[in-house]
Amino acid sequence: MSRHRFNDAERAGVYRAIAERRDMRHFLSTPIDSKVLQKLLQAAHQAGSVGLMQPWRFIRITEKQRRTQIYQIVEQERKKTAQALAEREDEFMKLKVEGILECAELIVVALPDKREQHIFGRRTLPEMDLASTACAIQNMWLAARAEGLGMGWVSLFDPIALTELLKMPEGSRPVAILCLGHVEEFYPQPMLEMENWIKAKPLDDFISENEW
Amino acid sequence: MSRHRFNDAERAGVYRAIAERRDMRHFLSTPIDSKVLQKLLQAAHQAGSVGLMQPWRFIRITEKQRRTQIYQIVEQERKKTAQALAEREDEFMKLKVEGILECAELIVVALPDKREQHIFGRRTLPEMDLASTACAIQNMWLAARAEGLGMGWVSLFDPIALTELLKMPEGSRPVAILCLGHVEEFYPQPMLEMENWIKAKPLDDFISENEW
Repeated sequence: MSRHRFNDAERAGVYRAIAERRDMRHFLSTPIDSKVLQKLLQAAHQAGSVGLMQPWRFIRITEKQRRTQIYQIVEQERKKTAQALAEREDEFMKLKVEGILECAELIVVALPDKREQHIFGRRTLPEMDLASTACAIQNMWLAARAEGLGMGWVSLFDPIALTELLKMPEGSRPVAILCLGHVEEFYPQPMLEMENWIKAKPLDDFISENEW
Repeated sequence: MSRHRFNDAERAGVYRAIAERRDMRHFLSTPIDSKVLQKLLQAAHQAGSVGLMQPWRFIRITEKQRRTQIYQIVEQERKKTAQALAEREDEFMKLKVEGILECAELIVVALPDKREQHIFGRRTLPEMDLASTACAIQNMWLAARAEGLGMGWVSLFDPIALTELLKMPEGSRPVAILCLGHVEEFYPQPMLEMENWIKAKPLDDFISENEW
């Protein structure tokens, strides 16, 4: 056993956050304490990043009208996704896929412009910037769960429309609309399973040795 | 304050893992307990994923020769990256960027084939599969830190060469070579900062309100 190992309660906290984190779409309107919000953003910012490029930007949406405009962009994509799903269109339209208008805080996360300057770890895999930013978002998700707050990652949007709405520079790219807030209850299992949309597969199906 | 909030010790564990997680390149050869390894993979597998598509595969490398071949693939890309960095070539070549031959466990993480079937949350942002897999890797990173184990994410490789070596199907794509193992010490700050390669910027530089 490693001498760097956390004590039992600390380890339990880490595993509990991992197990009980959910992609939330149902929120209460109770505001989030500003110090807690700052801690969550700091948790995101502590993620590692490829070549330490820190390829993230957080745009906090505080204007009501802008929130409504973001909601409309998502609603348009929700309908287009439903159509693309063909025979599951009606079923999809019944799912609750976001909580943009209800959540206490709305944060758009984006990859910055001028990313092509960063070669370290990205010469053959330029998409590692997104990977780093996703790690930052996962940090935030887990910290939010530890604080008793829910978070949802919405990716149903036209990135160009969102780029224009938020006056983002050329070369930048929004990758997440994060809904954050207090919740009545956390889903006991992923909501898409509870709604019988899809069934998750067990870990063993995803592991192999030495070759695919 | 939320009634879903973790207790002090559990919360401390989550924030400690986030703060003390490092991208490690120095390892001891001590083996990892197989039950702990299983817990880390389970932590990864508990990540959320876009449309619950679970877009990850874990290939555990146990053959010594295959590990050497992976090392060679990385070594080739390390030299190409150094050349691409031009005036920083020599400086880059002095950095330790991986611990592939020393670490106790080597795991390649890949996106699977047939991802185009998954439309939910990916119609306009197909790269959300990578984002989900990065969240899984971040879970593993944090759980490893809680267990006192170090992990490094190596992205210096030619994905086609690695795909061929591991006999991966067309349409799949390796995104990480994970080095995992016991460590003498965790770096007190990111190694690239300690080596004066780059200086991290503070959170305030990355936040704005309503617009970029």
